[in-house]
Amino acid sequence: MKNICLVLEYVGTNYCGFQKQKNGISIQQILENAISLVTKENTKTYPSGRTDAGVHALGQVVNFHTNSKIPPDKFFFLLNNILPKDIRVLKSFEVPNDFHSRKSAKSKTYIYKIYNGKNFSVFDEDRVLFYKKPLDFELLQKGAELIKGTHNFSAFVSSNATTKTTVRTIYRSTFQKKGDYFIYCIKGNGFLYNMVRILVGTLLEVGSKKRSFDSLKSLLNGEDRNKSGKTVSPCGLYLKEVNY
Amino acid sequence: MKNICLVLEYVGTNYCGFQKQKNGISIQQILENAISLVTKENTKTYPSGRTDAGVHALGQVVNFHTNSKIPPDKFFFLLNNILPKDIRVLKSFEVPNDFHSRKSAKSKTYIYKIYNGKNFSVFDEDRVLFYKKPLDFELLQKGAELIKGTHNFSAFVSSNATTKTTVRTIYRSTFQKKGDYFIYCIKGNGFLYNMVRILVGTLLEVGSKKRSFDSLKSLLNGEDRNKSGKTVSPCGLYLKEVNY
Repeated sequence: MKNICLVLEYVGTNYCGFQKQKNGISIQQILENAISLVTKENTKTYPSGRTDAGVHALGQVVNFHTNSKIPPDKFFFLLNNILPKDIRVLKSFEVPNDFHSRKSAKSKTYIYKIYNGKNFSVFDEDRVLFYKKPLDFELLQKGAELIKGTHNFSAFVSSNATTKTTVRTIYRSTFQKKGDYFIYCIKGNGFLYNMVRILVGTLLEVGSKKRSFDSLKSLLNGEDRNKSGKTVSPCGLYLKEVNY
Repeated sequence: MKNICLVLEYVGTNYCGFQKQKNGISIQQILENAISLVTKENTKTYPSGRTDAGVHALGQVVNFHTNSKIPPDKFFFLLNNILPKDIRVLKSFEVPNDFHSRKSAKSKTYIYKIYNGKNFSVFDEDRVLFYKKPLDFELLQKGAELIKGTHNFSAFVSSNATTKTTVRTIYRSTFQKKGDYFIYCIKGNGFLYNMVRILVGTLLEVGSKKRSFDSLKSLLNGEDRNKSGKTVSPCGLYLKEVNY
Protein backbone atom coordinates (compact mmCIF):
# COMPACT_ATOMS: atom_id res chain seq x y z
CA MET A 1 0.00 0.00 0.00
CA LYS A 2 1.46 3.33 -1.08
CA ASN A 3 0.66 6.78 0.27
CA ILE A 4 0.54 9.29 -2.59
CA CYS A 5 0.67 13.04 -2.12
CA LEU A 6 -0.76 15.50 -4.64
CA VAL A 7 -0.23 19.26 -4.81
CA LEU A 8 -3.26 20.86 -6.44
CA GLU A 9 -4.15 24.14 -8.04
CA TYR A 10 -7.81 25.04 -8.61
CA VAL A 11 -10.22 27.82 -9.43
CA GLY A 12 -12.90 27.43 -6.76
CA THR A 13 -15.60 29.40 -8.58
CA ASN A 14 -17.52 26.45 -10.03
CA TYR A 15 -17.53 24.24 -6.93
CA CYS A 16 -19.35 24.01 -3.59
CA GLY A 17 -15.96 23.89 -1.89
CA PHE A 18 -13.26 21.26 -1.47
CA GLN A 19 -15.17 18.90 0.78
CA LYS A 20 -17.72 16.37 -0.51
CA GLN A 21 -21.27 17.52 0.04
CA LYS A 22 -24.73 16.21 -0.71
CA ASN A 23 -25.97 19.35 -2.39
CA GLY A 24 -23.24 20.29 -4.84
CA ILE A 25 -20.23 19.30 -6.88
CA SER A 26 -17.08 19.47 -4.77
CA ILE A 27 -13.45 19.42 -5.80
CA GLN A 28 -12.92 16.34 -3.62
CA GLN A 29 -15.68 14.43 -5.44
CA ILE A 30 -14.19 15.26 -8.85
CA LEU A 31 -10.69 14.39 -7.66
CA GLU A 32 -11.69 11.05 -6.09
CA ASN A 33 -13.59 10.12 -9.25
CA ALA A 34 -10.49 10.88 -11.32
CA ILE A 35 -8.18 8.88 -9.02
CA SER A 36 -10.60 5.93 -9.05
CA LEU A 37 -10.66 5.97 -12.84
CA VAL A 38 -6.88 5.76 -12.87
CA THR A 39 -6.35 3.21 -10.07
CA LYS A 40 -9.57 1.14 -10.55
CA GLU A 41 -9.96 1.31 -6.76
CA ASN A 42 -12.32 3.11 -4.43
CA THR A 43 -10.47 6.21 -3.30
CA LYS A 44 -10.62 8.36 -0.21
CA THR A 45 -8.57 11.58 -0.21
CA TYR A 46 -7.28 13.52 2.81
CA PRO A 47 -6.80 17.26 2.24
CA SER A 48 -4.73 19.67 4.32
CA GLY A 49 -8.07 21.31 5.07
CA ARG A 50 -11.28 22.31 3.34
CA THR A 51 -11.60 25.38 1.25
CA ASP A 52 -15.05 27.01 1.06
CA ALA A 53 -17.15 27.47 -2.06
CA GLY A 54 -15.48 30.01 -4.32
CA VAL A 55 -12.08 29.84 -2.56
CA HIS A 56 -9.09 29.06 -4.80
CA ALA A 57 -5.90 27.09 -4.28
CA LEU A 58 -2.39 27.57 -5.60
CA GLY A 59 -1.00 24.69 -3.56
CA GLN A 60 -3.61 22.57 -1.79
CA VAL A 61 -2.13 19.28 -0.52
CA VAL A 62 -4.05 15.99 -0.60
CA ASN A 63 -2.99 12.41 0.07
CA PHE A 64 -4.55 9.01 -0.67
CA HIS A 65 -3.61 5.35 -0.22
CA THR A 66 -3.45 2.95 -3.12
CA ASN A 67 -2.35 -0.55 -4.09
CA SER A 68 -1.94 0.58 -7.68
CA LYS A 69 1.42 -0.11 -9.36
CA ILE A 70 1.36 3.26 -11.14
CA PRO A 71 4.64 5.12 -10.45
CA PRO A 72 3.81 7.97 -8.02
CA ASP A 73 5.04 10.75 -10.31
CA LYS A 74 2.83 9.48 -13.16
CA PHE A 75 -0.36 10.47 -11.31
CA PHE A 76 0.51 14.05 -12.26
CA PHE A 77 0.09 13.29 -15.94
CA LEU A 78 -2.71 10.70 -15.72
CA LEU A 79 -4.95 12.81 -13.50
CA ASN A 80 -4.42 16.01 -15.50
CA ASN A 81 -5.67 14.13 -18.54
CA ILE A 82 -8.99 13.50 -16.79
CA LEU A 83 -9.52 16.50 -14.51
CA PRO A 84 -11.57 19.49 -15.67
CA LYS A 85 -9.73 22.65 -16.79
CA ASP A 86 -10.15 24.38 -13.42
CA ILE A 87 -8.45 21.67 -11.30
CA ARG A 88 -4.83 20.71 -11.91
CA VAL A 89 -2.24 18.49 -10.24
CA LEU A 90 1.06 20.37 -9.93
CA LYS A 91 3.06 17.42 -8.52
CA SER A 92 2.51 13.83 -7.38
CA PHE A 93 4.97 11.86 -5.26
CA GLU A 94 5.13 9.11 -2.65
CA VAL A 95 5.17 10.00 1.06
CA PRO A 96 5.77 7.85 4.19
CA ASN A 97 2.78 5.76 5.19
CA ASP A 98 2.03 7.84 8.28
CA PHE A 99 1.93 11.13 6.36
CA HIS A 100 -1.47 12.86 6.61
CA SER A 101 -2.01 16.09 4.67
CA ARG A 102 -3.84 17.78 7.54
CA LYS A 103 -2.34 16.21 10.66
CA SER A 104 1.27 16.42 9.43
CA ALA A 105 1.00 20.07 8.36
CA LYS A 106 3.15 22.52 10.35
CA SER A 107 1.73 25.70 8.85
CA LYS A 108 -0.34 27.08 6.00
CA THR A 109 -0.14 30.24 3.94
CA TYR A 110 -3.13 32.06 2.45
CA ILE A 111 -3.27 35.16 0.31
CA TYR A 112 -6.22 37.49 -0.20
CA LYS A 113 -6.44 39.79 -3.23
CA ILE A 114 -8.20 43.17 -3.12
CA TYR A 115 -8.67 45.73 -5.88
CA ASN A 116 -9.07 49.32 -4.68
CA GLY A 117 -9.10 51.31 -7.95
CA LYS A 118 -11.85 52.75 -10.16
CA ASN A 119 -11.99 50.23 -13.02
CA PHE A 120 -12.44 46.69 -11.75
CA SER A 121 -11.38 44.40 -14.57
CA VAL A 122 -13.67 41.72 -15.99
CA PHE A 123 -10.61 39.46 -15.81
CA ASP A 124 -10.60 39.82 -12.01
CA GLU A 125 -14.23 38.76 -11.56
CA ASP A 126 -14.52 35.87 -9.05
CA ARG A 127 -10.77 36.11 -8.38
CA VAL A 128 -10.25 39.42 -6.61
CA LEU A 129 -12.38 41.40 -4.13
CA PHE A 130 -13.48 44.81 -5.45
CA TYR A 131 -13.36 47.17 -2.46
CA LYS A 132 -14.61 50.64 -3.34
CA LYS A 133 -13.90 52.75 -0.25
CA PRO A 134 -10.42 54.32 -0.27
CA LEU A 135 -7.85 52.29 1.63
CA ASP A 136 -4.80 53.60 3.44
CA PHE A 137 -1.88 51.26 2.78
CA GLU A 138 0.02 52.26 5.92
CA LEU A 139 -2.99 51.57 8.15
CA LEU A 140 -3.45 48.18 6.50
CA GLN A 141 0.21 47.30 7.05
CA LYS A 142 0.17 48.36 10.69
CA GLY A 143 -3.11 46.55 11.31
CA ALA A 144 -1.75 43.37 9.70
CA GLU A 145 1.37 43.60 11.88
CA LEU A 146 -0.80 43.42 15.04
CA ILE A 147 -2.13 40.02 14.00
CA LYS A 148 1.29 38.36 14.12
CA GLY A 149 1.94 36.21 17.19
CA THR A 150 -0.19 33.93 19.35
CA HIS A 151 -3.72 35.16 20.05
CA ASN A 152 -7.15 33.95 20.96
CA PHE A 153 -8.99 34.34 17.67
CA SER A 154 -12.50 33.73 19.03
CA ALA A 155 -13.66 36.98 17.39
CA PHE A 156 -12.48 35.63 14.03
CA VAL A 157 -14.32 32.37 13.70
CA SER A 158 -17.68 31.73 12.09
CA SER A 159 -20.34 31.47 14.80
CA ASN A 160 -21.33 28.08 13.29
CA ALA A 161 -17.95 26.55 14.04
CA THR A 162 -17.17 24.18 16.90
CA THR A 163 -13.50 23.98 17.91
CA LYS A 164 -11.71 22.97 21.07
CA THR A 165 -9.48 26.01 21.18
CA THR A 166 -9.49 29.29 19.31
CA VAL A 167 -5.83 30.04 20.05
CA ARG A 168 -3.60 30.09 16.97
CA THR A 169 -0.11 31.35 16.16
CA ILE A 170 0.44 33.62 13.15
CA TYR A 171 3.98 33.73 11.72
CA ARG A 172 3.38 36.22 8.95
CA SER A 173 0.70 38.85 8.33
CA THR A 174 1.59 41.44 5.69
CA PHE A 175 0.08 43.65 3.03
CA GLN A 176 1.73 44.30 -0.31
CA LYS A 177 0.62 47.04 -2.73
CA LYS A 178 0.88 46.59 -6.49
CA GLY A 179 -0.73 49.52 -8.28
CA ASP A 180 -4.40 49.50 -7.27
CA TYR A 181 -4.13 45.98 -5.82
CA PHE A 182 -3.56 45.09 -2.17
CA ILE A 183 -2.36 41.56 -1.47
CA TYR A 184 -2.69 40.26 2.07
CA CYS A 185 -0.49 37.31 3.04
CA ILE A 186 -0.97 35.30 6.24
CA LYS A 187 0.94 32.26 7.46
CA GLY A 188 -0.05 30.43 10.63
CA ASN A 189 0.03 27.10 12.43
CA GLY A 190 -3.70 26.69 11.86
CA PHE A 191 -6.80 28.60 10.86
CA LEU A 192 -10.33 28.61 12.26
CA TYR A 193 -13.41 28.40 10.08
CA ASN A 194 -13.67 31.66 8.05
CA MET A 195 -10.77 33.13 10.03
CA VAL A 196 -8.87 34.67 7.11
CA ARG A 197 -12.02 36.16 5.61
CA ILE A 198 -13.08 37.75 8.93
CA LEU A 199 -9.53 39.03 9.56
CA VAL A 200 -9.52 40.66 6.10
CA GLY A 201 -12.99 42.12 6.70
CA THR A 202 -11.72 43.64 9.95
CA LEU A 203 -8.46 44.88 8.42
CA LEU A 204 -10.42 46.61 5.65
CA GLU A 205 -12.27 48.54 8.36
CA VAL A 206 -8.91 49.58 9.82
CA GLY A 207 -7.61 50.53 6.35
CA SER A 208 -10.71 52.62 5.60
CA LYS A 209 -10.55 54.37 9.00
CA LYS A 210 -13.71 52.81 10.36
CA ARG A 211 -11.93 50.93 13.14
CA SER A 212 -9.00 51.91 15.39
CA PHE A 213 -5.87 49.91 16.14
CA ASP A 214 -7.00 49.67 19.76
CA SER A 215 -10.24 48.03 18.70
CA LEU A 216 -8.34 45.50 16.58
CA LYS A 217 -5.92 44.82 19.46
CA SER A 218 -8.73 44.13 21.90
CA LEU A 219 -10.37 41.75 19.39
CA LEU A 220 -7.22 39.62 19.53
CA ASN A 221 -7.76 38.84 23.22
CA GLY A 222 -10.70 36.50 22.73
CA GLU A 223 -13.71 38.66 21.92
CA ASP A 224 -17.12 37.73 20.53
CA ARG A 225 -17.58 37.19 16.80
CA ASN A 226 -20.11 40.02 16.62
CA LYS A 227 -17.46 42.62 17.57
CA SER A 228 -15.20 41.98 14.55
CA GLY A 229 -15.68 42.90 10.89
CA LYS A 230 -17.71 41.13 8.26
CA THR A 231 -16.73 37.93 6.46
CA VAL A 232 -15.48 39.11 3.06
CA SER A 233 -16.24 37.25 -0.17
CA PRO A 234 -14.46 33.93 -0.77
CA CYS A 235 -13.49 35.08 -4.28
CA GLY A 236 -10.29 36.87 -3.19
CA LEU A 237 -8.97 33.99 -1.06
CA TYR A 238 -6.23 31.58 -2.19
CA LEU A 239 -4.70 28.70 -0.22
CA LYS A 240 -1.12 29.37 -1.27
CA GLU A 241 0.85 26.57 0.34
CA VAL A 242 0.99 24.02 3.11
CA ASN A 243 4.28 23.54 4.92
CA TYR A 244 5.43 20.25 6.48
CA MET B 1 -29.39 62.92 -31.92
CA LYS B 2 -26.20 62.20 -29.98
CA ASN B 3 -23.37 59.90 -30.97
CA ILE B 4 -22.10 58.00 -27.89
CA CYS B 5 -18.81 56.20 -27.73
CA LEU B 6 -18.14 53.30 -25.35
CA VAL B 7 -14.81 51.72 -24.49
CA LEU B 8 -15.38 48.08 -23.51
CA GLU B 9 -13.52 45.35 -21.74
CA TYR B 10 -14.71 41.74 -22.07
CA VAL B 11 -13.77 38.12 -21.51
CA GLY B 12 -14.65 36.52 -24.86
CA THR B 13 -14.83 32.93 -23.56
CA ASN B 14 -18.61 32.68 -23.16
CA TYR B 15 -19.60 34.33 -26.44
CA CYS B 16 -19.76 33.45 -30.13
CA GLY B 17 -17.75 36.61 -30.84
CA PHE B 18 -18.51 40.31 -30.92
CA GLN B 19 -20.80 40.33 -33.93
CA LYS B 20 -24.46 39.38 -33.77
CA GLN B 21 -25.10 35.89 -35.10
CA LYS B 22 -28.06 33.60 -35.54
CA ASN B 23 -26.52 30.62 -33.78
CA GLY B 24 -25.08 32.02 -30.59
CA ILE B 25 -25.00 34.74 -27.98
CA SER B 26 -22.77 37.59 -29.09
CA ILE B 27 -21.33 40.47 -27.14
CA GLN B 28 -23.04 42.90 -29.54
CA GLN B 29 -26.45 41.34 -28.84
CA ILE B 30 -25.99 41.60 -25.09
CA LEU B 31 -24.69 45.17 -25.38
CA GLU B 32 -27.51 46.36 -27.66
CA ASN B 33 -30.08 44.79 -25.32
CA ALA B 34 -28.51 46.64 -22.39
CA ILE B 35 -28.43 49.99 -24.24
CA SER B 36 -32.05 49.55 -25.34
CA LEU B 37 -33.10 48.89 -21.74
CA VAL B 38 -31.44 52.15 -20.70
CA THR B 39 -32.55 54.37 -23.61
CA LYS B 40 -35.94 52.71 -24.34
CA GLU B 41 -34.96 52.88 -28.02
CA ASN B 42 -33.97 50.32 -30.61
CA THR B 43 -30.18 50.38 -30.71
CA LYS B 44 -27.62 49.60 -33.36
CA THR B 45 -23.98 49.57 -32.31
CA TYR B 46 -20.90 50.07 -34.51
CA PRO B 47 -17.72 48.38 -33.27
CA SER B 48 -14.14 49.14 -34.33
CA GLY B 49 -14.18 45.61 -35.71
CA ARG B 50 -15.36 42.13 -34.78
CA THR B 51 -13.54 39.92 -32.41
CA ASP B 52 -13.91 36.14 -32.91
CA ALA B 53 -15.40 33.69 -30.46
CA GLY B 54 -13.09 33.37 -27.46
CA VAL B 55 -11.11 36.55 -28.23
CA HIS B 56 -10.93 39.10 -25.41
CA ALA B 57 -10.89 42.89 -25.32
CA LEU B 58 -9.16 45.36 -23.04
CA GLY B 59 -10.31 48.37 -25.06
CA GLN B 60 -12.87 47.59 -27.77
CA VAL B 61 -14.54 50.77 -29.06
CA VAL B 62 -18.22 50.91 -30.03
CA ASN B 63 -20.49 53.82 -30.91
CA PHE B 64 -24.27 54.22 -31.15
CA HIS B 65 -26.75 57.02 -31.88
CA THR B 66 -29.46 58.00 -29.45
CA ASN B 67 -32.10 60.63 -28.77
CA SER B 68 -31.96 59.82 -25.08
CA LYS B 69 -31.35 62.72 -22.66
CA ILE B 70 -29.07 60.60 -20.47
CA PRO B 71 -25.75 62.44 -19.94
CA PRO B 72 -23.12 60.61 -22.05
CA ASP B 73 -20.82 59.78 -19.12
CA LYS B 74 -23.73 58.20 -17.21
CA PHE B 75 -23.94 55.29 -19.69
CA PHE B 76 -20.81 53.95 -17.99
CA PHE B 77 -22.66 53.46 -14.74
CA LEU B 78 -26.10 52.54 -16.10
CA LEU B 79 -24.82 49.88 -18.50
CA ASN B 80 -22.45 48.30 -15.98
CA ASN B 81 -25.46 47.81 -13.70
CA ILE B 82 -27.10 45.65 -16.38
CA LEU B 83 -24.25 43.97 -18.23
CA PRO B 84 -23.05 40.47 -17.24
CA LYS B 85 -19.87 40.15 -15.19
CA ASP B 86 -17.69 39.40 -18.24
CA ILE B 87 -18.55 42.58 -20.19
CA ARG B 88 -17.75 46.01 -18.78
CA VAL B 89 -17.91 49.61 -19.99
CA LEU B 90 -14.65 51.40 -19.09
CA LYS B 91 -15.75 54.84 -20.34
CA SER B 92 -18.68 56.48 -22.11
CA PHE B 93 -18.55 59.90 -23.76
CA GLU B 94 -20.06 61.92 -26.60
CA VAL B 95 -18.29 62.05 -29.97
CA PRO B 96 -18.91 64.17 -33.12
CA ASN B 97 -21.83 62.96 -35.20
CA ASP B 98 -19.62 61.71 -38.03
CA PHE B 99 -17.46 59.55 -35.72
CA HIS B 100 -17.61 55.85 -36.65
CA SER B 101 -15.70 53.37 -34.46
CA ARG B 102 -14.39 51.39 -37.43
CA LYS B 103 -14.13 53.97 -40.21
CA SER B 104 -12.55 56.67 -38.03
CA ALA B 105 -9.93 54.32 -36.52
CA LYS B 106 -6.30 55.12 -37.44
CA SER B 107 -4.77 52.00 -35.92
CA LYS B 108 -5.39 49.12 -33.57
CA THR B 109 -3.23 47.27 -31.08
CA TYR B 110 -3.57 43.58 -30.20
CA ILE B 111 -1.66 41.50 -27.72
CA TYR B 112 -1.27 37.73 -27.71
CA LYS B 113 -0.29 35.86 -24.53
CA ILE B 114 1.70 32.61 -24.59
CA TYR B 115 2.84 30.42 -21.70
CA ASN B 116 5.96 28.36 -22.39
CA GLY B 117 6.70 26.78 -18.99
CA LYS B 118 5.96 23.39 -17.43
CA ASN B 119 3.03 24.17 -15.14
CA PHE B 120 0.22 25.87 -17.01
CA SER B 121 -1.95 27.54 -14.40
CA VAL B 122 -5.67 26.85 -14.09
CA PHE B 123 -6.03 30.62 -13.77
CA ASP B 124 -4.67 31.03 -17.33
CA GLU B 125 -7.18 28.63 -18.91
CA ASP B 126 -9.05 30.32 -21.81
CA ARG B 127 -6.86 33.41 -21.37
CA VAL B 128 -3.36 32.35 -22.42
CA LEU B 129 -2.06 29.91 -25.05
CA PHE B 130 -0.13 26.97 -23.56
CA TYR B 131 2.72 26.28 -26.02
CA LYS B 132 4.76 23.26 -24.98
CA LYS B 133 7.71 23.19 -27.39
CA PRO B 134 10.68 25.25 -26.18
CA LEU B 135 10.75 28.78 -27.60
CA ASP B 136 13.83 30.88 -28.28
CA PHE B 137 13.10 34.45 -27.23
CA GLU B 138 15.71 35.99 -29.53
CA LEU B 139 14.30 34.19 -32.56
CA LEU B 140 10.79 35.36 -31.65
CA GLN B 141 11.99 38.94 -31.31
CA LYS B 142 13.84 38.91 -34.61
CA GLY B 143 10.93 37.23 -36.38
CA ALA B 144 8.49 39.81 -34.97
CA GLU B 145 10.78 42.61 -36.15
CA LEU B 146 10.45 41.41 -39.78
CA ILE B 147 6.69 41.95 -39.67
CA LYS B 148 7.01 45.69 -39.10
CA GLY B 149 6.37 47.85 -42.18
CA THR B 150 4.04 47.64 -45.17
CA HIS B 151 3.54 44.15 -46.61
CA ASN B 152 1.11 42.08 -48.61
CA PHE B 153 -0.36 39.84 -45.90
CA SER B 154 -2.18 37.44 -48.26
CA ALA B 155 -0.49 34.49 -46.51
CA PHE B 156 -1.93 35.70 -43.20
CA VAL B 157 -5.64 35.85 -43.90
CA SER B 158 -8.23 33.14 -43.36
CA SER B 159 -9.02 31.48 -46.69
CA ASN B 160 -12.72 32.22 -46.05
CA ALA B 161 -12.16 35.96 -46.08
CA THR B 162 -12.97 38.33 -48.95
CA THR B 163 -11.09 41.61 -48.93
CA LYS B 164 -10.19 44.14 -51.61
CA THR B 165 -6.55 44.41 -50.64
CA THR B 166 -4.33 42.35 -48.38
CA VAL B 167 -1.75 45.13 -47.97
CA ARG B 168 -1.47 46.49 -44.43
CA THR B 169 1.04 48.58 -42.50
CA ILE B 170 2.38 47.37 -39.15
CA TYR B 171 3.80 50.05 -36.81
CA ARG B 172 4.81 47.79 -33.97
CA SER B 173 5.52 44.07 -33.70
CA THR B 174 7.41 43.03 -30.56
CA PHE B 175 7.78 40.18 -28.10
CA GLN B 176 8.20 40.68 -24.37
CA LYS B 177 9.27 37.94 -21.95
CA LYS B 178 8.00 37.82 -18.38
CA GLY B 179 9.16 34.64 -16.67
CA ASP B 180 7.65 31.76 -18.64
CA TYR B 181 5.27 34.08 -20.48
CA PHE B 182 5.79 35.59 -23.91
CA ILE B 183 3.64 38.58 -24.80
CA TYR B 184 3.35 39.55 -28.46
CA CYS B 185 2.23 43.09 -29.24
CA ILE B 186 1.20 44.24 -32.70
CA LYS B 187 -0.06 47.65 -33.82
CA GLY B 188 -1.20 48.28 -37.38
CA ASN B 189 -3.44 50.40 -39.57
CA GLY B 190 -5.73 47.43 -40.09
CA PHE B 191 -5.92 43.66 -39.71
CA LEU B 192 -7.23 40.95 -42.01
CA TYR B 193 -9.48 38.15 -40.82
CA ASN B 194 -7.46 35.90 -38.46
CA MET B 195 -4.29 37.83 -39.33
CA VAL B 196 -2.87 38.15 -35.80
CA ARG B 197 -3.57 34.49 -35.00
CA ILE B 198 -1.87 33.28 -38.20
CA LEU B 199 1.08 35.64 -37.62
CA VAL B 200 1.51 34.25 -34.10
CA GLY B 201 1.21 30.68 -35.39
CA THR B 202 3.97 31.41 -37.89
CA LEU B 203 6.17 33.25 -35.37
CA LEU B 204 5.89 30.27 -32.99
CA GLU B 205 7.35 28.11 -35.79
CA VAL B 206 10.24 30.58 -36.09
CA GLY B 207 10.70 30.62 -32.30
CA SER B 208 10.74 26.81 -32.10
CA LYS B 209 13.21 26.52 -35.03
CA LYS B 210 10.74 24.93 -37.40
CA ARG B 211 10.80 27.85 -39.86
CA SER B 212 13.63 30.11 -41.05
CA PHE B 213 13.70 33.91 -41.20
CA ASP B 214 13.93 33.67 -44.99
CA SER B 215 10.73 31.66 -45.12
CA LEU B 216 8.97 34.26 -42.96
CA LYS B 217 10.34 37.08 -45.15
CA SER B 218 9.07 35.48 -48.34
CA LEU B 219 5.62 34.99 -46.78
CA LEU B 220 5.41 38.76 -46.37
CA ASN B 221 5.49 39.31 -50.15
CA GLY B 222 2.00 38.03 -50.86
CA GLU B 223 2.12 34.23 -50.56
CA ASP B 224 -0.68 31.69 -50.31
CA ARG B 225 -2.36 31.02 -46.98
CA ASN B 226 -1.27 27.37 -47.06
CA LYS B 227 2.43 28.34 -46.85
CA SER B 228 2.15 30.11 -43.47
CA GLY B 229 1.69 28.68 -39.96
CA LYS B 230 -1.48 27.52 -38.31
CA THR B 231 -4.15 29.77 -36.81
CA VAL B 232 -3.50 29.66 -33.07
CA SER B 233 -6.28 29.52 -30.51
CA PRO B 234 -8.37 32.67 -29.95
CA CYS B 235 -7.90 32.33 -26.18
CA GLY B 236 -4.56 34.20 -26.07
CA LEU B 237 -5.74 37.17 -28.17
CA TYR B 238 -6.73 40.55 -26.71
CA LEU B 239 -7.85 43.65 -28.61
CA LYS B 240 -5.84 46.11 -26.53
CA GLU B 241 -6.79 49.49 -27.94
CA VAL B 242 -8.10 51.40 -30.92
CA ASN B 243 -6.40 54.66 -31.82
CA TYR B 244 -8.16 57.61 -33.51
